Order: sequence, then C-alpha cells, then structure tokens
Amino acid sequence: MKIYGDLTSGNCYKVKLLLAQLGFPHEWVQISALERETRSPEFLAKNANGKIPLLEIAPGRYLPESNAILHYLAEDSSFLPAEKFERAQVLQWLFFEQYSHEPYIAVSRYIIRFLGRPCNREGILQEKVAPGHAALRVMEQHLADRSFFVAERYTIADIGLYAYTHVAHEGGFDLTPYPAIRSWLDLVRNQPGHLTIDDALRQEIH
Amino acid sequence: MKIYGDLTSGNCYKVKLLLAQLGFPHEWVQISALERETRSPEFLAKNANGKIPLLEIAPGRYLPESNAILHYLAEDSSFLPAEKFERAQVLQWLFFEQYSHEPYIAVSRYIIRFLGRPCNREGILQEKVAPGHAALRVMEQHLADRSFFVAERYTIADIGLYAYTHVAHEGGFDLTPYPAIRSWLDLVRNQPGHLTIDDALRQEIH
Repeated sequence: MKIYGDLTSGNCYKVKLLLAQLGFPHEWVQISALERETRSPEFLAKNANGKIPLLEIAPGRYLPESNAILHYLAEDSSFLPAEKFERAQVLQWLFFEQYSHEPYIAVSRYIIRFLGRPCNREGILQEKVAPGHAALRVMEQHLADRSFFVAERYTIADIGLYAYTHVAHEGGFDLTPYPAIRSWLDLVRNQPGHLTIDDALRQEIH
Repeated sequence: MKIYGDLTSGNCYKVKLLLAQLGFPHEWVQISALERETRSPEFLAKNANGKIPLLEIAPGRYLPESNAILHYLAEDSSFLPAEKFERAQVLQWLFFEQYSHEPYIAVSRYIIRFLGRPCNREGILQEKVAPGHAALRVMEQHLADRSFFVAERYTIADIGLYAYTHVAHEGGFDLTPYPAIRSWLDLVRNQPGHLTIDDALRQEIH
C-alpha cells in the first residue's frame, strides 16, 4: 500500500504511527499541503477534496480522511475493539477529534508553526483558544478516571487524539493545567513500537 | 433506546431518519441547544462535550456524535455495506461531512435561520461561503457518475450528507448549479420509509 502525506501534519503522522505499530509495509509518498501539492491536477484526480493523508489500498483504490484510514487499517487488530459498543466509542472519539479538537488545536499549530503567525490570522487564532481548551477539558475529564479513551486499552481513539494533542503547545495550548492528559500522553509514548513525529520525519521509509 | 436531541438540527434529524427506516422503536427526548439545555449540569453529566444528538443505548450507556450513532445503529443492516473497502468509504464520507461540510453549511443555516442573521456574525457567514461551495463541488463531482455515495446503493453515507445538504438553501447555499446533487436528493427522498425533517418535527414519537 501507498500513503500520500506530509509527516509535519498530525493527520498524516497518526496514520504513520499506526502503520509502524501494526508493522505493515508501505510506501510513503511525500505530498506537501504547504506547497499546494494537494491542489495539483494529479493529486485532485486521486482525492477531489485535495487533502492528505490519502491511502492507496491497491492501484487506483483511494481512501482519504485520516480517521477513516485508521479505522480501515485497524480492523481485526488489537487497535480496534471487537465489542460493538466499544467500537462505537472509538468512532465517537475519532469524530470528536475531527470536529471539536482538530479545527482548533491543529489549525492553531499550523498558523503559528508553519505560517509563522501572520498578523492577518491573529483574529482567527484568538477565536480558537476557547474551543481548543474546551476540547482539552472534555479529554481531561474523561481521562481523570481512565488510562485510555476506550475499553481501558490503547486503541486508534488514542492514536487519533495523540497526534495533535502531543504538539498542542506548538499551537499555543499549554498542557500544564491538564495532568490526566499529560499522564495519558506518557502512556501512549510508552506503547510498544511507538514512533515519535520527529523519528517518523527522519525515517522517510520507502 | 432513548435519543436526546432537537429535530431542527440536521445532526439529530439524520439519526431520526435512520431510526425510522430501520423501524427501531425509541423514545425521543427533546433537548434544545438554542435554549442551552445542552449546557445544563444534568445533560453535561450524560455528554461532557455538551452536544446533541446523544443516544442512550441502555440506562447510563451514552453514545454522542451523530455519525458514530449512525454507524452503531446501521451495523448488520443494509444501510452499512459488509464489504471492508465499502465500509471504509462510508466512514470517509461521514468524516468529510463533519469536517468539510457541516462546519460551513450547517453553521451558516444555524446563523441565518435560527439566530436571524445578526450583524456581528456577518463576517463569519461570509468566510463560510467558499468552503461550503467547495464541499458541494466535491459532492457534485463524485455524484456525476454515481447514484449514491458508496457502493451504488443507499447507505448511512447518504443519510449523513442528506441531513444538511437538503436544507443548504436555508444557509444561503443555492443548489441550482449542482444538478447531480439535486438528482441524488430526489433519490434519497424516494427511499422506502423516508421521513422529511418537517414530518419528523411534527411526529415527535414517544
């Protein structure tokens, strides 16, 4: 299988992390959103929505949406529970991640770290502070009496949420007031086969 | 089972539509986001993220996130394909809906129809026009040579996307330039057991 993506993006990194932990061989094709390679006619022919990551399961069979990719890859593995309600809770947190977390925490990181915090984005950045912290509070409360998000074990719900939470400070979100989140981040980092975002960037596996 | 929600919300209506077509008996508990009932201590104890719809599968077992609810309810039915790649594509479109469609089309409808288009939201509204039409273009292109979103049959991908697309005009999105979307809307409306959002509001089934 082939993955089109850019490992500076948490949405791409989450797929790379799961692939590393599953031990699935794959080819990584570097596509930069920042350099608008996701808007080229070649790439738009693969994913009309012009977003990465994109999984090519077999020649010409494409699957976009990072969390749909996680779910597809994790099926029949320990990273996705078999029990129906637990599987539903995994999806619940993956939808939470894309709707209530990523648009605030990931986008703030993008504006600050990759766009260099331009003046004309300062208003947008300020609007993202309150909903970003609201998402972190929901996570903190959930983790107060749990080790992981679902079923008391490491699943793609943790991988999906780890991707941008562990670099939240790069988006201006200080995690000091969130001790349960910080403990959970440590636990995720200590899972077998963990790959850091920096190591993933350095590896560039083909 | 019990559903907490408000049928003026497309996210709630999509769950009601699937329940109607599955013929699942359920109790609908009216909770209004507009009147901030989703922020009451009683409701936050059920869903810390303070959002509707919320499914109560059994007493005290709660599942939030409209598309996670659709996926849970549709398992082992004709509304969710059995084939692995088709199931992945259903999730792909449900994540597309929550990330690339709902924040623009649903939120514009909310501001115009339910908040009465206040002056202080005009800027936000204008920012939503281009990404909303981008989502509609992706849908139009996909539907140009297909009847439904996945597997050439009616699935929860269609239900998820129908919910806010069929009321897109209430958010200022004119569907005239999208003939494939309009044909697909008609096809969805003609599915057995279809329930319109207005009929759902009138029924208020207990």
